[in-house]
Amino acid sequence: MSYASLYQRSLLDDVLPFWERHSPDPEHGGYFSCLTREGKVYDTDKFIWLQGRQAWLFASLYNRQEARPEWLELARSGVEFLRRFGMDAAGDHYFAVTREGKPLVQPYNIFSDCFAAMAYSQYGKAAGDDTYRALARSTYARILKRADNPKGGYEKSTGVRKLRGFALPMILSNLVLELEDVLAPAHVEAALDRSVYEVMEVFLRPDSGLIHEFVDQDGTLHDSMDGRLINPGHGIEAMWFMMDIGQRRNDPVLIDRAARTVVRTLEFAWDTRYGGIYYFIDAQGYPTQQLEWYQKLWWVHLETLVALSKAWSITGDDTIRKWYERVHEYTWKHFPDPQYGEWYGYLNRRGEPLLTLKGGKWKGCFHVPRALWQCARAFETLERQTAPPASIDQTPT
Amino acid sequence: MSYASLYQRSLLDDVLPFWERHSPDPEHGGYFSCLTREGKVYDTDKFIWLQGRQAWLFASLYNRQEARPEWLELARSGVEFLRRFGMDAAGDHYFAVTREGKPLVQPYNIFSDCFAAMAYSQYGKAAGDDTYRALARSTYARILKRADNPKGGYEKSTGVRKLRGFALPMILSNLVLELEDVLAPAHVEAALDRSVYEVMEVFLRPDSGLIHEFVDQDGTLHDSMDGRLINPGHGIEAMWFMMDIGQRRNDPVLIDRAARTVVRTLEFAWDTRYGGIYYFIDAQGYPTQQLEWYQKLWWVHLETLVALSKAWSITGDDTIRKWYERVHEYTWKHFPDPQYGEWYGYLNRRGEPLLTLKGGKWKGCFHVPRALWQCARAFETLERQTAPPASIDQTPT
Repeated sequence: MSYASLYQRSLLDDVLPFWERHSPDPEHGGYFSCLTREGKVYDTDKFIWLQGRQAWLFASLYNRQEARPEWLELARSGVEFLRRFGMDAAGDHYFAVTREGKPLVQPYNIFSDCFAAMAYSQYGKAAGDDTYRALARSTYARILKRADNPKGGYEKSTGVRKLRGFALPMILSNLVLELEDVLAPAHVEAALDRSVYEVMEVFLRPDSGLIHEFVDQDGTLHDSMDGRLINPGHGIEAMWFMMDIGQRRNDPVLIDRAARTVVRTLEFAWDTRYGGIYYFIDAQGYPTQQLEWYQKLWWVHLETLVALSKAWSITGDDTIRKWYERVHEYTWKHFPDPQYGEWYGYLNRRGEPLLTLKGGKWKGCFHVPRALWQCARAFETLERQTAPPASIDQTPT
Repeated sequence: MSYASLYQRSLLDDVLPFWERHSPDPEHGGYFSCLTREGKVYDTDKFIWLQGRQAWLFASLYNRQEARPEWLELARSGVEFLRRFGMDAAGDHYFAVTREGKPLVQPYNIFSDCFAAMAYSQYGKAAGDDTYRALARSTYARILKRADNPKGGYEKSTGVRKLRGFALPMILSNLVLELEDVLAPAHVEAALDRSVYEVMEVFLRPDSGLIHEFVDQDGTLHDSMDGRLINPGHGIEAMWFMMDIGQRRNDPVLIDRAARTVVRTLEFAWDTRYGGIYYFIDAQGYPTQQLEWYQKLWWVHLETLVALSKAWSITGDDTIRKWYERVHEYTWKHFPDPQYGEWYGYLNRRGEPLLTLKGGKWKGCFHVPRALWQCARAFETLERQTAPPASIDQTPT
C-alpha cells in the first residue's frame, strides 16, 4: 500500500469511526473525550480544548476532505455545546464543564479559546452560518486582547521574571490560517509576519538550532529549568506551520530553515537506545522538572510525521526521507492499537503503552486524524511527482 | 548491621553530609534544592516548600537527635531567609523566590505556609527565640483562616463541584504536633480530634479500606478521575501520623486501624510484576490522568518504611513484618546512590532511575532524612524489646 493510501484508509476506516461511534453525547451534545482502550466512557466531564478540537476536526474535514452531512452534524453538536455552555459572560472559554454544561474550571487557559475559535470558523464556513463566523471573530478578538496576560487573574507569576512562552506565538501562526474565512486579509498577513518572526527569530536559537519553550523578555536565554526547556514535539509542530506559510508565500528560504530545524531537533531528541522522540529535554542535559520527560507521546510522533512528509514532498531531500522512514517505522509499530482501533497516546521509554486510554483530559479526536489527513495530502503530492508517467505505465503491449 | 544502625548511619554518614556540603547558599542564605546526582546546583530558584522543610529538618534534628551547633546554624539560615524574603505583606508564603529572595510565584499554595510554620516552631524551640515562635503562631493562624479556600484568588474551580481534598486534613494532623511548643494544649487536642475524624472517617472508605484523595462535600465518593484517585504514598504517610497520635493518646484501636490500612493499601498498590509501590492508581482500574502513575518515587517508599517500622515496633505483627521486609528490600536496593551518596527520587516502573537528580522543585532535604530518623527510632524500640535480656546474654560461663 502506498503511504498516501495507508494514511487515508487509517483515517477513514479506523480512527474516525472510533470517535464517531464512542464520543458523541446523544443527551447533552458535544463529545465525551475520556474513552478507555475499548471506547468506554470513564469520565463525563467536557474539556473545552477537546470539544473545540473535535468540532474543528469534523468541520475541517467537511470543508477539506468531503462534504459528508454526518460530519457537519457532528461538528454542529460540538460548536452548539460550546456556544451554549462553553463561555463565561465576557466570552472567555472555560477550561472544563460538566457533561450537562455547568462550568467547572474557570477560563484561565487561553488555548480553550484558540481551539473554540478554530471550530467556530470552520463550522461557520461549512454550514454557511454567520452566527458562528461572528463568534469566531469575537473569540479571536478576545484572544488578542488577552495575549499579553493570557491567564489574567489566575496568573501566579509575580512578574519579577516574565519569561515569554512559545506556545501562543506558535499556535497563532496556525490559528489565523484556520480563521482566514472571517479575518481581513491584511490582518492575516500581518499576523503571519509576526508569528514567523517570533518563531524563527526569537524562539529558534541560531547557536543550537533548537526552539526553546521560554525566552527572557529581551529575547535572551534564561539559565533555569524553564529557560533550558526543549519540547521537541512543539518545535517540530511549529515547523510544519512555518512550511505551510512558506508554501503559501512561495518562500523557499523559510521552508528550508523549517525543514533543517526539524532534522536538527530530531538529531537532538531521538532516543538512540529505544527509538522514539523524547517528550522534554533540558538543553544543557540537566534533569528536567517533568517526570514524563522520557515518555513517547502520540502527538509528538504524529506532528513529526506531518512535518517530515511535508518537508519531503516539498524538498525531495534524502536526509528528510531517511528521517521520515525512521520515525514512520517507530510510530506505526508502537502507537496504533490493532485490537480496538485508534492509537495509544502514552508509551514508556521502551515503547510499551503506559496508559491504554484512547482519550482523556488531553488526548481527544484531534492529533491522530489531523496528522493522518495532513500526511495523506503530503504523500499524494509526493506520489504524483514520483509516479512514472502514465504513458509509460500504460503502454499497450 | 541492625536495622536501627543502618538507618542511623545512613542519616548521619551519608544523607545529611550530602545536604550540608552542597545545599547551603553562602551568599544569600537559605538552600539550593536543585542538585544533580553529584551535588551540582542546576537551578538557583528557591522553592518555599523546600526551604521550610529543610530548615525544619535541621531544627528538628537539633531538638530531637543531638544539639549540634552546625545544625542550628543551618536551620537559622533557612528561617531567616524565609522571614526576610518568604512572605507577602499579608504574611502568606510565596511558592518560589529567586536566589536573592525576590518573589517569583505568588502564595497560591498553602503547603508553603505549613512547612514554614513547622520550621519556625522547631527553630524557635531550638534557639529559644520568641520571634520565631510568634511567627509560627501567626503563620498557623493564616493557615486556619485560609483552610476553606487555600488557593484564594488563584482557585480555578468555579465552585460548581467542590470536592474536599485529603492533603490539608492530613498535613494538619502532623503540623499541630510540630507546633505543640507554640499552641495551646486544648487547641492541639481539638485539632487532632478533627484530623483523626477527617482522615479515618471521611477519606478512609470502609468498603474498600482505601483512602481517596478527594471526596464530595457530603462525604460521598464522586465517580470521576478525581473522585477515584488513590495516592498510596499519601494514604500510608497519613497512617503513621495516625499511629503517632494513637501512641500519644494510648489508643490501640486507632493504631490497629492505621496499621491495617497500611497493609490494605500495599496489597492494592504493590506492583506484583516489577516490585515497588505505584504513585497513583484509579480505584476502579480506569486510566489515571497522571502520566507518572506507574513510577516508583522515593518518598512513597520511605513513608511506607516509616509506617511499617512503627506498626511493627508497636504491634509486633507478623504480616506487618513481612511487608516491612519486602518494601525494605526493594527500597534499599533501588533508591540509594552508592556512588555519589543520598537517594534517587524518581524510578521508572522497572526500578531504573529516570531522573538522577538528588534535589529539584519537589525533592529536597526532607523525606529521606526524616524517614531515616523515624525508622531508626522505631527499630531502636523494636530491638530493645526483642533483644535477649542482658542477664541471660551475660551469664558468666
